[in-house]
Amino acid sequence: MNELRRDPITGRWIIVISDKVPSPSDFKVEPHVKNKDNCAFCWGNETLTPPEIIAHRRYGAPNSPDWTVRVVPNKYPALRIEGELNKEGVGIFDMMNGIGAHEVIIDTPDHFRDMADLSHAETEEVLWAYLARSIDLRRDRRFKYVLIFKNYGKSAGASLEHPHSQLIALPIVPKRVSEEIEGAAKYYDYKERCVFCDMIRQEQEEKDRIIYEGEKFLAFCPYVSRFSYEVWVLPKKHQSDFAAMDRDSISCLAKAIRDSLARIKELLRDPSYNFIIHTSPINGHEREDYHWHIEIMPKLSKIAGFEWGSGFYINPVPPDIAARNLLSAKIEEK
Amino acid sequence: MNELRRDPITGRWIIVISDKVPSPSDFKVEPHVKNKDNCAFCWGNETLTPPEIIAHRRYGAPNSPDWTVRVVPNKYPALRIEGELNKEGVGIFDMMNGIGAHEVIIDTPDHFRDMADLSHAETEEVLWAYLARSIDLRRDRRFKYVLIFKNYGKSAGASLEHPHSQLIALPIVPKRVSEEIEGAAKYYDYKERCVFCDMIRQEQEEKDRIIYEGEKFLAFCPYVSRFSYEVWVLPKKHQSDFAAMDRDSISCLAKAIRDSLARIKELLRDPSYNFIIHTSPINGHEREDYHWHIEIMPKLSKIAGFEWGSGFYINPVPPDIAARNLLSAKIEEK
Repeated sequence: MNELRRDPITGRWIIVISDKVPSPSDFKVEPHVKNKDNCAFCWGNETLTPPEIIAHRRYGAPNSPDWTVRVVPNKYPALRIEGELNKEGVGIFDMMNGIGAHEVIIDTPDHFRDMADLSHAETEEVLWAYLARSIDLRRDRRFKYVLIFKNYGKSAGASLEHPHSQLIALPIVPKRVSEEIEGAAKYYDYKERCVFCDMIRQEQEEKDRIIYEGEKFLAFCPYVSRFSYEVWVLPKKHQSDFAAMDRDSISCLAKAIRDSLARIKELLRDPSYNFIIHTSPINGHEREDYHWHIEIMPKLSKIAGFEWGSGFYINPVPPDIAARNLLSAKIEEK
Repeated sequence: MNELRRDPITGRWIIVISDKVPSPSDFKVEPHVKNKDNCAFCWGNETLTPPEIIAHRRYGAPNSPDWTVRVVPNKYPALRIEGELNKEGVGIFDMMNGIGAHEVIIDTPDHFRDMADLSHAETEEVLWAYLARSIDLRRDRRFKYVLIFKNYGKSAGASLEHPHSQLIALPIVPKRVSEEIEGAAKYYDYKERCVFCDMIRQEQEEKDRIIYEGEKFLAFCPYVSRFSYEVWVLPKKHQSDFAAMDRDSISCLAKAIRDSLARIKELLRDPSYNFIIHTSPINGHEREDYHWHIEIMPKLSKIAGFEWGSGFYINPVPPDIAARNLLSAKIEEK
């Protein structure tokens, strides 16, 4: 029978459908059409982007080719870095001018590979760029949050083909994040334990939903998965701030991410997905009650009115079945 | 310059982009391919659905043709009506068996028309069915909420072409609803006024975002629109419960909905959309602090990682421009 399940972090309910579970091949996946003509993110076209903020290259001047990872300001930013932050009321509403940072991390010079195809060392470089930018931007007192995410494929909202991630620094803490933080704080108040740490323990005991376990990171399909084949990656040891990771953790995380993305790509025929890092707000010192993590959400079906209207999700693939299928995918070490 | 705007109901922030506003013709709209062969919702195929719950027909037996609106149980329900509600803990999670009602309202026998194409009288009939089912289901003590919504078109998640709406009765109050209710209650505590009533007054004063004003209903593009061309329809007089509407209100609401949907269809070339009724929970007597309303969200662009990760939306069409464009659409009275 179908089940209603409640996430103890946000209080969100989902319905898990167990009546007619679609097989991985039942999902219609649109192929990714790729054409690198005039791609601003390929080697040789560095002048087509705003000047780079940072890049990894062995030799050569800034904005020359031969980089392996490159970070540039978004050419059409949703928020701009210049100016004072002004807040005002507009009747019952609050308004701020659009101050913030909007950057693009070009994951690889190769137009035709996604993050799932990168080697371990290449994935580490991308994570290094995430970290370097997070650490730099938090020095700007106007910002309260750094959001790092990746949209892969059209169905996930990507407008450019070349593999890239995005970073937005915000003068506010976004609602989804503050909800998580408040929910986790309530749990901590009551139990004096981190809800994410408890979740990790439960997943490790039950074992049914784990798809990767390394020395420092765990990847699993959460018990309250909103989406088919949703995967979370968490540090096993409590840590609230993504940017507090050490060098060794980056290497372990690269392995966990590569493994998870490669399994999704192999099993589900290269679906579009969103990849989001949830971390604590800036200035939020190390918190006992929050635990940073990565959420990977393959876009396998449309989100319909029910979900939008209610914040209530219907997931047609029970997460233990999703995990079992992902584990069965054959992936290669790189 | 782009603006950050905050919704006083839920505390949600959005970014309104005013740099390069796309024109209505810039949105790529997929055409709706329609084929009525073996459609279970067309006249003559009544036996292909579970037996009807209610229907509007002048003559003829239940489950015969010649109806104008017909309500049937969903053949593949996410929740089932039979059984006791059992709640249990699963480690740190909460679980319930999938008790609920999942019904389909077939809006019209005509396979090829959408709600935007219905006459005033036909729209009234659909609303009558919404209301009749809401009133009936609230007598079931297991249910806390009745959610009525409509997905039109594939991009909005519709899996069947024939015009239909859906109703789900839930044993819990969904998160998005309780968030709204809590936010509105906070506002009421502070101001002793309904936040939605204040919003209506502000929209009426500023006039920039109104697309329809009738005797009893107002339709506008909200100041904090998450989506391009988002439209809300609200009763002008305070009312927390959709199902408390009288006959005269139904007629006025039909006009407001028809007008709004017809403008969206005409201006944006028949886009997919989600249509959701937000109303107060069952047993929630008449509340001073909540105000039922309808949210219409055209699906013009994909929701990308940023939105999912943060509950933070980027809207490329400022709502005053959306309203102006919608007002310019030529629609016919029916």
